[in-house]
Amino acid sequence: MASTGPLAHRPRIAVIGAGAVGSYYGGRLAQGGHDVHFLLRSDFDAVKRHGLSIKSWVGDFELPASRLNFYRDPREMPAADWVIVTLKTTHNDQFEALISPILKPETAILTVQNGLGNEERLAALFGGERVLGGMAFTCINRVTPGRIEHIAHGQIRLGHFNGGPGERASHIAAIFNDCKVACDVLADLRYGRWEKLEWNVPFNGLSTVLDQTTDLLLATPEGQGLVRRIMAEVIASARACGVPLGDDLIDINVKRTLNMGAYRTSMHIDRQLGRDLEVEAILGEPARAGAAAGAANPCMQAIYAMARMVSGACIAAGRAEPRTLPARGST
Amino acid sequence: MASTGPLAHRPRIAVIGAGAVGSYYGGRLAQGGHDVHFLLRSDFDAVKRHGLSIKSWVGDFELPASRLNFYRDPREMPAADWVIVTLKTTHNDQFEALISPILKPETAILTVQNGLGNEERLAALFGGERVLGGMAFTCINRVTPGRIEHIAHGQIRLGHFNGGPGERASHIAAIFNDCKVACDVLADLRYGRWEKLEWNVPFNGLSTVLDQTTDLLLATPEGQGLVRRIMAEVIASARACGVPLGDDLIDINVKRTLNMGAYRTSMHIDRQLGRDLEVEAILGEPARAGAAAGAANPCMQAIYAMARMVSGACIAAGRAEPRTLPARGST
Repeated sequence: MASTGPLAHRPRIAVIGAGAVGSYYGGRLAQGGHDVHFLLRSDFDAVKRHGLSIKSWVGDFELPASRLNFYRDPREMPAADWVIVTLKTTHNDQFEALISPILKPETAILTVQNGLGNEERLAALFGGERVLGGMAFTCINRVTPGRIEHIAHGQIRLGHFNGGPGERASHIAAIFNDCKVACDVLADLRYGRWEKLEWNVPFNGLSTVLDQTTDLLLATPEGQGLVRRIMAEVIASARACGVPLGDDLIDINVKRTLNMGAYRTSMHIDRQLGRDLEVEAILGEPARAGAAAGAANPCMQAIYAMARMVSGACIAAGRAEPRTLPARGST
Repeated sequence: MASTGPLAHRPRIAVIGAGAVGSYYGGRLAQGGHDVHFLLRSDFDAVKRHGLSIKSWVGDFELPASRLNFYRDPREMPAADWVIVTLKTTHNDQFEALISPILKPETAILTVQNGLGNEERLAALFGGERVLGGMAFTCINRVTPGRIEHIAHGQIRLGHFNGGPGERASHIAAIFNDCKVACDVLADLRYGRWEKLEWNVPFNGLSTVLDQTTDLLLATPEGQGLVRRIMAEVIASARACGVPLGDDLIDINVKRTLNMGAYRTSMHIDRQLGRDLEVEAILGEPARAGAAAGAANPCMQAIYAMARMVSGACIAAGRAEPRTLPARGST
C-alpha cells in the first residue's frame, strides 16, 4: 500500500511533455489557480508568443503567456511537489534526464501515458512509493503548437503503482475534480491498465496495421472474429499476470465500439501523420508480460510484430517526425 | 493411384482462363504444333486483332490470330482431351459453367492455379480420377490484352489428384517438355502444394496486409520472426493433414527469399492494382484444412482474416476490377 503522505496544500506541479494531453490537463490546473510549470520543446516559441488556447466541450479558455510558467530545459525548472508525465511513450528513454532535475525526496510522479510499463520504468528509476499511474479517457488534439482541441470525454482514472487507493491519489483526484477534470481513484491500477488494454491492443493494433477505422475492423465476420480473438488473448495475458479480467468485457467492448462509428485510434492517427508509433507500450509490453507469465498470445505477438514492421516502414519512408515532444492523439 | 489411360496421341487441349499464365503455357503448346483452344473474355477483341505476342526469356514468339483457336463462350468450343484451368481462383465458382461444355468422359483436367482446394473442387464436380494439379514456378505478366511477358523461371510441377505419378501426368509432362516448358511429375501432389504454401502463406499474406515487398518483411527481427512463426504453423497444418513437411524448409525458404531482393508477391501486386485477391485459395483453405485436422494455426487464421479485411477495403474503395477473367501475376 502507498504510504507517503498527502501533497502540500498548494502543490507545485510540473508537466513533463506538454503535447495535447499535457497542455490540456496542465492547462485546466493552471486555470484553476494552481502553480503549474510546463516543460515544452517544439511548442516553446508558439506558447511564448500566443500562450495556450484551449477549445473544449467542457468550456473554452485561454492562458496568456504572462500567466504561464514554461521552460525548454528541466534544469531551469523549480523542484516540484507533483510531476505529471505526459510524454509520448516513445520518449520514455528520456525519463531520467527530464524528471531527475525537478525531484524532491517526496515528489509524487503521476504518469498519464498509454499502455503498459510506464509506472514500472519510473519506479525502477525513482522508487515505486512515489509513482502513480493515470489513464486519460479522452479525445484531445493539438491543432497547432499551443492550440489544443478537447473534443469529447476527459475523465482521468488514477491509482498508486504500489497498489491501493492511498491519500496521494485521493488528493490529486480532488484537485483535478476542482478543476473541471472528472477524476476517479482506482482500487487497482493494474486492473485498470489491463482493462484499457483489452480495447487498445486489438483496436490500436489492427487499425494501425490495416489503416482502417474501428467500424471497418468490425464490419466483417473475419474482422470481428479477429478482434474478439485478440481480446481473449489480452484477457488471458492479464489473468496470467494476476489481473482477473472477465470474459464479458469482450461483448461489452465490441458493442461499445460498434456505437463509436468510424473512430480513428491514436496509433492509427500517428501512422497517418507519419509520427512515431507507441508500439512498445500498447502492444509490445502487454504481449511480453503475458507470455512471460505463461499465457499463449500468438495473435498479440503477431500484431505487435506487424505494427513494428509498419512503424519501420514509416521511418524508412522518411515520414517520421524529428524526435521532439510530439502531440498526442485520442485513445 | 490414377488408373485412366494415356491421352490421345495428338490431344485437343482447351485452356480455360487465358490470362498471363494460360496464354503463356497454352501459347507454348500452340507454338509446338498442338491443337490448342483458348477461352478468352476480356482479351478476346485484342487477340482477334493482333494475336498473342509473347516476350520470354526462353525465346520470344508471336501467334497470329489466324493460327489461333479462341472463343468467348465455352459452349462454342469443341470437346477437349485435356483441359488446362488457369482461372484466377476467385472465379472457381464458374468451374461448372466453363468446363462442363467441353468435357468428354475421359477428358483430363489439369488445374494450374494457386493455393489449396482447386483439385478438390474439380474432383467434386467432375470426378477425381481425371483431375491433375500443377504448380507454375514462374514470373509471367500480362502487359496489355494479348501481350504477355515471361520474365523468369517457368517450370511446372504436376501430379494426379488421386495420388501417384500415373501415365497421364507423364504424358502431359512430356508434351510440355517438348514445347520448351520444363515440367516434372510429382510423386505426391499434396506434398508439393503444401511445400509451396509454406512460402506462399507468410509472404503472400504479409506482403498483402502490410503492402511491403519480401525484403522488407525479412528486414527486422520482428518481421523475420513472424514469417518463421507462420511457416511453422503451415508445417504443423500440413503434418496434421498427413503431409510430412520438414522443419528445415523454414531456413531454406527464408534464405532463398533473402536472396530474392525486393520481390512483390502475386497477391501484393493484385492489391496494388486493385484486383481481386486470391485470399481463399492461398490463405483461407490452408488455415481451415489445418485447423480441421487439429493443428493450432492462430497466426495463419489472423493473417487470413486481415487479408480478407484488406480485400474488403479494396472493394469498398471501388478499386476492384469488374469480374472478368483477369491477368495473373507472379507467384
